[in-house]
Amino acid sequence: MEPSTPYVLIDETIMDRNIRRMAQAASRLGCRLRPHVKTHKIPEIALRQIAAGACGVTVAKLGEAEAMAEGGIRDIFMAYPLVGADKIARAVALSRSVGRLILAADSLEGARALSVAAQESGAPLEIRLEVDTGLRRTGVPYGEAAALARTVAALPGLKLTGLYTFRSMILDGKPTLDREAAGRQEGQLLAALKRELEGLGQLETSGGSTPTGLFTAAVSGVDEIRPGTYVFNDRMQEANGSCAAQDCALRVVYTVVSVPEPGRIVLDGGSKSISSDVAPGAPPYHLGGYGGCPEDSRLVLERLTEEHGMASLLPGSRSYRVGDRVSIVPNHVCTTVNLYDTVYIQRADTLREVKVAARGRLA
Amino acid sequence: MEPSTPYVLIDETIMDRNIRRMAQAASRLGCRLRPHVKTHKIPEIALRQIAAGACGVTVAKLGEAEAMAEGGIRDIFMAYPLVGADKIARAVALSRSVGRLILAADSLEGARALSVAAQESGAPLEIRLEVDTGLRRTGVPYGEAAALARTVAALPGLKLTGLYTFRSMILDGKPTLDREAAGRQEGQLLAALKRELEGLGQLETSGGSTPTGLFTAAVSGVDEIRPGTYVFNDRMQEANGSCAAQDCALRVVYTVVSVPEPGRIVLDGGSKSISSDVAPGAPPYHLGGYGGCPEDSRLVLERLTEEHGMASLLPGSRSYRVGDRVSIVPNHVCTTVNLYDTVYIQRADTLREVKVAARGRLA
Repeated sequence: MEPSTPYVLIDETIMDRNIRRMAQAASRLGCRLRPHVKTHKIPEIALRQIAAGACGVTVAKLGEAEAMAEGGIRDIFMAYPLVGADKIARAVALSRSVGRLILAADSLEGARALSVAAQESGAPLEIRLEVDTGLRRTGVPYGEAAALARTVAALPGLKLTGLYTFRSMILDGKPTLDREAAGRQEGQLLAALKRELEGLGQLETSGGSTPTGLFTAAVSGVDEIRPGTYVFNDRMQEANGSCAAQDCALRVVYTVVSVPEPGRIVLDGGSKSISSDVAPGAPPYHLGGYGGCPEDSRLVLERLTEEHGMASLLPGSRSYRVGDRVSIVPNHVCTTVNLYDTVYIQRADTLREVKVAARGRLA
Repeated sequence: MEPSTPYVLIDETIMDRNIRRMAQAASRLGCRLRPHVKTHKIPEIALRQIAAGACGVTVAKLGEAEAMAEGGIRDIFMAYPLVGADKIARAVALSRSVGRLILAADSLEGARALSVAAQESGAPLEIRLEVDTGLRRTGVPYGEAAALARTVAALPGLKLTGLYTFRSMILDGKPTLDREAAGRQEGQLLAALKRELEGLGQLETSGGSTPTGLFTAAVSGVDEIRPGTYVFNDRMQEANGSCAAQDCALRVVYTVVSVPEPGRIVLDGGSKSISSDVAPGAPPYHLGGYGGCPEDSRLVLERLTEEHGMASLLPGSRSYRVGDRVSIVPNHVCTTVNLYDTVYIQRADTLREVKVAARGRLA
C-alpha cells in the first residue's frame, strides 16, 4: 500500500548512480572521497557510499557520528569544532569503538581542551584544523592558519593529521555560481597551505562540496573531498549545473487537499514537510517556488505555511482534483530529509521504509 | 547536568502564565478556547491547557490527533480537510476511541468521502466546514460557503456542527500588522455566515490565532478561538504586539564554538536547530536576525547554514569566548520545536526532558 502523504520517496536507481558517479570521478582524479552524511543521515546509505569507494564519512555533529558508528561505519570525520567537556568525553569514548575518528578544532582553546582530554584518557586523538577560505563561518582565518597549525601540532596527546575547509559557492569571498573557479580556488588555497606546512609531516587536505568538489579534487595537493548533497541532488544543484533534473533522486509526495479556485491547489504539507531555507527568488539561485514538480513544470509551489503548500498553476499546467498525488523535488534536500523520521526507498515496484537514524541528534 | 547543546529550554512559569492568561481572557469574553497544539506537539502541555479551561485541542494532522489521543486528550478538532481513504479509515477508528473528534472539509468531494465512510462504519462523523476569509489557503471561498454548508448538512452520515476559518494577520485580503482590525473582521465574517445559516441549527463558529484571537472572540456570534503560538510566544508575536519580551517561554540554548574574528561568533546550530522560515527583514515583521538573545540585544543571529549560526556583535555587545552558552528566542517557535525530538522544561533549578510526541507525525 502506498504510504500516507506527505512522505519522502527516494529512487534507489538514481541514488546509486549518483553515488557511483561521484566515487568514480574522484577516483579518476586520484582524490579520496569522504561524503558528508548530513544529507541523508542514514547508515545504510553511508555504507553504500563506502562500498562504492568512499574512504569513510563526514559528519557535522557528534550525535551524527554516534549514529553512524551504531550503524556500522568505522571511519568518521567530524568536520566541526568540538567544544564542551560533555561532548569531548563522548568523543573520547567513541574514538575507542570505531576504527578511525578524526576530530576538528579551529582555535587554540578548542585544541587545548582536546589535548587535555587525550592526555587524561591515555589515548591520542586525531584532529584536523579547520581553515576559513572565504565562507566566514567556522575556521581559523587563512592568514593565521599556518601559525595555529604549528602550535596545535606541538600539543601533547593530539595527532594533527590534516587541514580542512568548507566554502562551496564562494569566490574571492563572495557568493558565485562559478563552480569551477570556486572549487579550484579552494583547492589552491588548501594546497598552498599544505606546502607551507611541509615541516609538520604529511597533512591530509580536505575540501569541496557537491558543486565544487571535483574542481577542488583536480588541484594537485588536495587529498580528499567531502560532498554531501550529490547523493540525492536538489533544485539548487540543478540550478548551479551540478546535476541534471533526472539526477534528482528524492521527492516529497503530497496529496491535493483542496482546489479552492481555478489555478490554485493546496498540498498537504508546508514548511514542516519541505525545506523553506532557500526561498523563491533568493540569490544566488533565484528559484521559482519552494520546489519543482517533475511531472508538471507549470505548477509553482508558491507559498508555504506550516502544514499547507499553496501551488499556482500556470497556463499549460495539468488539471488537478482533490485526492491527486503530486511529487515535489525540494530546493534544498538536506533540510528536507531532516524533517522526517523515515524515508521510503523505491526500486521498481517495491517500497522500503528506512529510518533517518541520525535525525534529531543535534547535540 | 546541563544538556548538550543545542537544546530547547522552556520556562515552565512563563508557559503556565501564558496558558492561564489566554484561558482567562477567552473566558471573560464568553468564548471557548481550543488551542492549536501544532506549536508544542506535547500531550502533557495540551492537558495543562485543558486544565486551565480549554475545551479541547486543535490539530492540523491526523498523526497529531493520534498522538494527542495516545496522550490522553479526549476532545480533538482536526482543522484540516481530511482527504484520502487511508486517512479517513484511521479517522473513523480514532473517532471510536476519543470522546469527541471533529473532522473538517472544504469541498463537496471531501465531505462526500467522509459521508460514505460514516455510512459504512455505521457511526456518524462530526464535521466543520472550513471557510476562507482572506488567507487564500484551504477553505471554501466565503461567497460559496453558505451553499456548500447546506449541501454538506444534507449528506447522510455526517453531522455538520460548525464553521471555521483561519487567516491571522490578514485584513481585506492583505497582510497587516493591525491585530485588532484583522481579528474583528474575521469574527464578523464568521458571525454573519452563522446568521445566514440559522436554518441548519446551532453551528459553532471557530476562528482566530494568537495575535488576533481575542479580537475575534469579542465579536458576538463567535463561539471558539484556536490560538497556538501563545503557549510559548516568539519574536513574531513580540513584534506584532501579542506579547512582551518576558512572555517568551522558549529559547534554544547554544554553545559558542568559534570566535574567528572580532565582532563575530559562531553558535553550534543553524537551520536544522532553529526556524529559518521567517527570514531577517522579511515583511511584515522585518525582524533583525533569525532570533534574539534575551541577555544581549547587540547580538544579531545574522546567517544560518545547516549546523552553524553566525552572529554579529554590534557595538555594546557582551564579549564571548569559545565554550560560552548563548540563548536565542526564535522568530518562529512552531517550526523550531518541530526540529527536536525532546525539549527541556525548567522550573526553578530542575530540568525535565519531555518528548515532542507528535513531531514527525506528518501524515
